[in-house]
Parts: sequence; structure tokens; C-alpha cells
Amino acid sequence: MTSGGEHPGLTDLGRCPLPTIGVVRTGRTTTETTPVQSSLNEEELGVAEIDEQFREALAGRADFDYLWLITWLGCTGDPVPPPLTQVPFLLRPQRRSMGILATRGPRRPNPIGLSLVRLVRVDGTSISFQGVDMVDGTPLLDVKPYVARFDRPPGEPRSGWFDGVETPRSVTPEQLLGRGDAITGW
Amino acid sequence: MTSGGEHPGLTDLGRCPLPTIGVVRTGRTTTETTPVQSSLNEEELGVAEIDEQFREALAGRADFDYLWLITWLGCTGDPVPPPLTQVPFLLRPQRRSMGILATRGPRRPNPIGLSLVRLVRVDGTSISFQGVDMVDGTPLLDVKPYVARFDRPPGEPRSGWFDGVETPRSVTPEQLLGRGDAITGW
Repeated sequence: MTSGGEHPGLTDLGRCPLPTIGVVRTGRTTTETTPVQSSLNEEELGVAEIDEQFREALAGRADFDYLWLITWLGCTGDPVPPPLTQVPFLLRPQRRSMGILATRGPRRPNPIGLSLVRLVRVDGTSISFQGVDMVDGTPLLDVKPYVARFDRPPGEPRSGWFDGVETPRSVTPEQLLGRGDAITGW
Repeated sequence: MTSGGEHPGLTDLGRCPLPTIGVVRTGRTTTETTPVQSSLNEEELGVAEIDEQFREALAGRADFDYLWLITWLGCTGDPVPPPLTQVPFLLRPQRRSMGILATRGPRRPNPIGLSLVRLVRVDGTSISFQGVDMVDGTPLLDVKPYVARFDRPPGEPRSGWFDGVETPRSVTPEQLLGRGDAITGW
């Protein structure tokens, strides 16, 4: 295993405190210009490059339509610790703040990312997927199969403040900033 | 922030390499006697005790029906690294092994747990939930709201080998072992 900072191309992203299993390659370079959620940007292609030493761990990967990518989002050089209340990207137009544990934002006590992506193809140790919400070079901590019986609650669960906001397709933080004005907490 | 090992009662579970935001309290004491998935044990109550310093981070938590608990499952003193192919709990009866990245098992390169739980009540910094699949004292790394628009793929996605196995309610690894015989890779 290698730490995130030792991956080629990750020098600008700083170090990850956990061993990584690979790196996510996308066409996005900054958080502000990257769609806020994979499920809102469900066509854009990315590749999870798994380290060669974990090739064997991919056995049995066939016939899953979706995966969870567990990533480390804390390598942007932000000051630590992050504010406990922040204006989430999707509430920028309203300038409403929320406790960080009631958001899906990346600046968290542990900046662990959870992205639901559609599995397109596995070529050796390269997992092609659709659903990009991470910048190129994001350290990959884990890949878990999406299992409908485990991951889909019954009925139509309420999703708190998310139920009252627009979630435009492929929207980026930068675009959401344009709808509001000065932001605190970010 | 405190590391997992500094939480009262966590001395037997070893240390967590990331700062924790709290600890999960359940009535389960060993992995072998703990149900394998929260969604298969959706009535049993547990409590996520958030550290007092993160109280403010819970603001806005209302009106979410489900949460993701992101936990650290690597504090059991297992040898590192885990095998890259293992017999998942649910395949013990068949003695079939899978690549660990095609399973939801706890022994992974990064033993990060992902549990979908139903939010029952928030009392101060105590989050009561239904859906126990973790032992008492499991370090809590993050809590994320379940957001149907983000976390529910369309249609009826295929879930690989999980689609071909029984998933009895509240089943534990110990019970699954009883259906098979000697196990390798665990």
C-alpha cells in the first residue's frame, strides 16, 4: 500500500493519512468546477485506477451495476479543523448554513467521500465508471459493491433540507455561487 | 478530536488511525454474533454518541429518515494486511471466495464500514437509530444524511453474487458458519 501523496500526480493534493488502494482519474481539476454529486452527473466518465497489488481483490466484481467509491477529500490544503456549520453548495443561493453532519459537503472532521457510481467496465485494474463528483487524482480508500437489498431503504424516505432545494444536473459549486453572493463558512 | 483508542470503553478495540467523531453503542460484543448488515437487522436499536465538541455539527439534522454511519472496523487486532480474497459471511454455506472489493466484509485494505440506519431520535449529541451491524464501541468516523436523490440508483440494479444468495433477517456470521464447515480466508 502507498499513501496518497506517493501516487504520481498527487503532489498537488497533499497527503492522505490512510493507505490508499488507488486513485480516481477524472477530467475535473478543481472542487469549484466539479459537479457536487455523482448521481447528479450520471453520464460523465471517470476511471478508478486500482493499485496493481490489489488486482486479486477485484475478483467477483462482475454483474454489479453500481459501486460506492470511498475517497479521501481532505488533500486540498484547507486549514484544519473545518467549521462545524457551513453553507452547503446546494444552499449557496439561499445562504443557509447547516451542521456539517447534516450535509454531504467535503469539508468534514473526516473528509471521507461517498460516491455512488455506475460500473461501466473493468479492464485489469482500471474500473471505468459513470458519475463524476471528484477531482482528478482523488485518493481512493475503498470500493464497495452497491447492494440493493442493503443500500435502498423502503418507501420514500425523507431527506431533510435536500427535499426543499433544487438539484440541477451536473451543477458545480461555482455555478451555485453565481446564484447567491458572499458565502460564509466555506 | 480524540483518537478511537482514547474513548472510554474502547481499550479492547485497539486504536483507530483517524480522529473519531464519536462511538457507536450497541448490544453486540463480537463480530461473529453481530448481524452482518444493518438493513437485514432493521429493528435493533443502537446509539451513535457524538463527541460533545461536535454538537454544533448536528444542526439541521431534522427530517432525515435515514443516515449513513461511516465507521472504523479495523480495531479487532487482526493481522494486517487482510487476504485479498475471502469467503464472505453470506457465502460461508457455499464456501465460495470473492475478491474483497466485491464484498461488504469488514476485513479490507481500509476497514471502513458503511451502515444504512434509520434515524429514530436525536437527543443532544446522542443519535438513536435502528439497524445494528456493528459491535459496541465501534469508532465513528462520519455521519452522512441519506439523500434519496443521490443514493438511490434508478431501476433495479444488479448486485452481482448477492443476487444469488439468501439474506436471512438478522443473520450473524456465527449462524452462517453453522450452515457450512471449515472456512478459509476468514
